[in-house]
Amino acid sequence: MKYGYGVDLGGTTVKMGLFTQAGALTDKWEIPTNTASGGESIPTDIGSSILTNMKKHSLAASDLLGVGIGVPGQVWPDGTADAVNLGWKRFPLLPTLEAVTGLRAVGDNDANTAAMGEYWQGGGKGYGSLLFVTLGTGVGGGIILDGKCLQGAHRAGGEIGHIPVNPDETRVCGCGNRGCLEQYASATGCARLAMEALSATDTPSLLRASQKVDARAVWDAVKAGDALALEIADRFCRILGRGLAAVASTVDPEIIVIGGGVSKAGQILADMTAERYRAYAFNACKDTPIVLASLGNDAGMYGCVANLL
Amino acid sequence: MKYGYGVDLGGTTVKMGLFTQAGALTDKWEIPTNTASGGESIPTDIGSSILTNMKKHSLAASDLLGVGIGVPGQVWPDGTADAVNLGWKRFPLLPTLEAVTGLRAVGDNDANTAAMGEYWQGGGKGYGSLLFVTLGTGVGGGIILDGKCLQGAHRAGGEIGHIPVNPDETRVCGCGNRGCLEQYASATGCARLAMEALSATDTPSLLRASQKVDARAVWDAVKAGDALALEIADRFCRILGRGLAAVASTVDPEIIVIGGGVSKAGQILADMTAERYRAYAFNACKDTPIVLASLGNDAGMYGCVANLL
Repeated sequence: MKYGYGVDLGGTTVKMGLFTQAGALTDKWEIPTNTASGGESIPTDIGSSILTNMKKHSLAASDLLGVGIGVPGQVWPDGTADAVNLGWKRFPLLPTLEAVTGLRAVGDNDANTAAMGEYWQGGGKGYGSLLFVTLGTGVGGGIILDGKCLQGAHRAGGEIGHIPVNPDETRVCGCGNRGCLEQYASATGCARLAMEALSATDTPSLLRASQKVDARAVWDAVKAGDALALEIADRFCRILGRGLAAVASTVDPEIIVIGGGVSKAGQILADMTAERYRAYAFNACKDTPIVLASLGNDAGMYGCVANLL
Repeated sequence: MKYGYGVDLGGTTVKMGLFTQAGALTDKWEIPTNTASGGESIPTDIGSSILTNMKKHSLAASDLLGVGIGVPGQVWPDGTADAVNLGWKRFPLLPTLEAVTGLRAVGDNDANTAAMGEYWQGGGKGYGSLLFVTLGTGVGGGIILDGKCLQGAHRAGGEIGHIPVNPDETRVCGCGNRGCLEQYASATGCARLAMEALSATDTPSLLRASQKVDARAVWDAVKAGDALALEIADRFCRILGRGLAAVASTVDPEIIVIGGGVSKAGQILADMTAERYRAYAFNACKDTPIVLASLGNDAGMYGCVANLL
């Protein structure tokens, strides 16, 4: 039995896990992300922490497949990484990790590693291909085909948050375009849809008493049977379903897995999205299952280890 | 130097070609498609024709990589094929072809083989990945990644004609959904956009004198400087560009190749589509080249041989 380290690098903490090659999470801990001096100590911090953990479990380099890391940015074939929030531009991430640990290091974008994690041990386990969509502040995604992440010619593979879904939108998306999926199907988008619905009518709603009208408040109100919240959620799921249908007609994944903060709304989100999806999806793909992610914040660590296999 | 046969099976004729493994088309001919008795003689007809051609060129089985065939339907991993127009349902296509010719036979859907042909020797030659879109009676497509066609879990990979692009559409697409790309960006869709524009206004237009308002008439009028035709073409390219932008945010191909009957409009179609595409595409993919297919009706044959390599 070999082991592997999965490292999910975030802007404030680094989540680290020791896994068996069969996918069992054996140990799990965090260290702070030191962003001082352009994040230059990060690979050394991670490497030292791994060396300490190897000692704790009496693991030798020969027991290990290596270190997989997920980065909020890009990892290039030469092992350098870009990450705006960390101040990295062609930063020698993997070579440094390898030098410090004496282990093989592989890396990828964090949305891709989360997709890979859900494919390997999560909501998509046992399926041959997968679309992972993460509904958070924005909408991200990753596509796994034949066990590999679809990177794309410009590293935009699976960037489904920027599928154009509304030609009539006048507001500008963070990316500079108008009418991107992310403008509606994210936590931010859900809150905006709610604010619009609240100001467009006088319909009574639990949301009018909410201290903060955010995605969680909307879905809590849906579960409490609030009619206006249900309308908002329906609009949200209709747009999301349409975006997923566009991906299905293109990539035709075997399963669609929904993760990210908004997915905490639970099964009702998956069910409503699946129903709207079916109305727009091409016949052959109408029955593609849409399920919730199951690894939560650990998905990235899992995927990092899957990338070592 | 080895050779291969490429066979593009259509509803009325079978286009056949002898290629070198380097991609040179050495001989080319056609035979009629005999659809009598559920198309049962088709593989024998093709096989006999290939045996005759092998004799003509003094080729032995050992000189050949095999026979690749493109089918207006599906070819399954066991070598059987479905093709509604030919009356085939799990028809033993590849085994019969192999038995008759003594050669290895491989097969795929015809839109996929055309994509593969343009990738190997056509508009996408030299690129690492490609989206091929064919604008004919409908809109078809094929996606090539890492030299292989993306089939999809339900064989719907690259079926971009059924991307939902208009949530407000009331008319029903051939597939049963509403607002599919194919309802606008096909030859049929182009003619419909033209009829709508002509009846919506009294603007003078060359199209008003056309015997037949079809896609060709629209693009001919565009080239003649007709203002209304330009408006129609602009709407056509805007919708197509938006659909391609959705694919680019998902698959991120290195190049987009446009073929099919409507692409005979020429470079102006590619240029106008590229301009509209850029307005909707995700930043990383804005400069993805959009070019015309270059192999015309031979693309399928080329792709069939590429599938033998």
